[in-house]
Amino acid sequence: MLTSILALLALLPAPATAAPKADAPIASDWHAIPENNLLVMTLADGGRVVIRLAPEYAPAHVTNIRKLAHAHWWDGETVYRVQDNYVTQWGDATEKKPLPAGVIANPPAEYEWPARPLAARMSRRDPYAAIDGFSADGWPLASNGTEQWLTHCYGMVGVARDLAPSTGSGGDLYTVIGHAPRHLDRNIALVGRVIDGMDNLSALPRGKGEMGFYADPKRRVKIVSVRLGTDLPAAEQPHYQYRATDNPRFAAYIRARENRQPPFFTVPAGGADLCNVPLETRRTPG
Amino acid sequence: MLTSILALLALLPAPATAAPKADAPIASDWHAIPENNLLVMTLADGGRVVIRLAPEYAPAHVTNIRKLAHAHWWDGETVYRVQDNYVTQWGDATEKKPLPAGVIANPPAEYEWPARPLAARMSRRDPYAAIDGFSADGWPLASNGTEQWLTHCYGMVGVARDLAPSTGSGGDLYTVIGHAPRHLDRNIALVGRVIDGMDNLSALPRGKGEMGFYADPKRRVKIVSVRLGTDLPAAEQPHYQYRATDNPRFAAYIRARENRQPPFFTVPAGGADLCNVPLETRRTPG
Repeated sequence: MLTSILALLALLPAPATAAPKADAPIASDWHAIPENNLLVMTLADGGRVVIRLAPEYAPAHVTNIRKLAHAHWWDGETVYRVQDNYVTQWGDATEKKPLPAGVIANPPAEYEWPARPLAARMSRRDPYAAIDGFSADGWPLASNGTEQWLTHCYGMVGVARDLAPSTGSGGDLYTVIGHAPRHLDRNIALVGRVIDGMDNLSALPRGKGEMGFYADPKRRVKIVSVRLGTDLPAAEQPHYQYRATDNPRFAAYIRARENRQPPFFTVPAGGADLCNVPLETRRTPG
Repeated sequence: MLTSILALLALLPAPATAAPKADAPIASDWHAIPENNLLVMTLADGGRVVIRLAPEYAPAHVTNIRKLAHAHWWDGETVYRVQDNYVTQWGDATEKKPLPAGVIANPPAEYEWPARPLAARMSRRDPYAAIDGFSADGWPLASNGTEQWLTHCYGMVGVARDLAPSTGSGGDLYTVIGHAPRHLDRNIALVGRVIDGMDNLSALPRGKGEMGFYADPKRRVKIVSVRLGTDLPAAEQPHYQYRATDNPRFAAYIRARENRQPPFFTVPAGGADLCNVPLETRRTPG
């Protein structure tokens, strides 16, 4: 089925097929993700999800999340909400489970911070921000020139909260499974991104209750365990790398995403959405 | 669980909960969708998907699609590709099935047209277009001031094709199940939008083969039938309405989407992505 492979290659977001060699990473572009920034969630259906945490942007929330994982707080809890084109959410559906000692119920609102330099930038603005780009270590960031914030792209992980000034402990988390809900930027804490096993959260049956809750609690997906990488036995520890963005290969990668080329594409857009630039990670080779 | 309901209401894109009353539709804002613009796909797993066709923008492709449905061409074919954060695709995976008489293998490229007036507009541009907005009958459109095109928002349905100048017959269709791949705009024909049963396509297991193909053909989801609304017995005919956009209620709805309000939101964005404005349809009441 050569012809459809050609067609589908052209439909594929992966740079290896959609862009020239100048935008391919070289060995030195790959850097290790510290294992204490990796959260491994195992579901009763066998699904395994790996989340990269972002302590540099949400230190208090990530400190909570590490403590919750260390205390095995999520073990036996559930994925209880799957709303189509929006979010999958997990944690304690009953909201009755006490927090472990040392976990702050309402950390500081780590929603934005004074703008830091970007390692790579998009060519055009979007409706949510004047400046879009990436940190050197591969986080999607937006800025108005003064404040800067992480963006709600597909797969990003945030902290569910009640009405402000509540900020959420981190016990209930969600990930984006549809079009980026960027209106949540600057209004809720983002703490990481799913870097492996996303389909274990995105392909779950949608909840038929209000806002994608599973109306029947029996439909909830049990969480077997959530562990910090460094809390796992050495043999089970996950090892991942991210692709650095502070190099000409990644700059070329952005330009290629903004200007798709023939033979499939006939009209290059000239720009691209920040959330349409896949941020590559991989298991550490060997 | 009052508190989490509050939190999740605030996370809900639906205007009824996220916006003031001024943006709520009134009875006269609802208009019937002609039944010959409705395509009903029934899957072997019991799932039912309803697609609204857009003959006003892709007349030759939609004419093909109506003929394919009328000839029962899709019956017994499959959903054979589900790529996470991208597309679900269906049709004839073998590419060997002959087209019915009168179906054009390569219709004209109905990718863009001279700009027509928009009934409602977004406040800010996006990276793909200077002007974004909606037709009066609820289609998402982008324009550079000269050309205009339908946009690849979540749930939009397009015609898979091989390399240009191939345009695709319409026998193989895809729908967007992730972040809007707007780089496909102006490069491929959009022919409609899924208006009911989207989760029957978006929550399918992701294909583990290249580009989301089901590596094992046994994983493909069989299509029982695809019918045009007007080809169904009267008792089974679907009846839907769309929300018109050429009224102050919809204008207020856009503004509300662009500027989310307390008590949940503390920082309104001032703008929103065209693809973050849900286009409402409903079963015809009564």
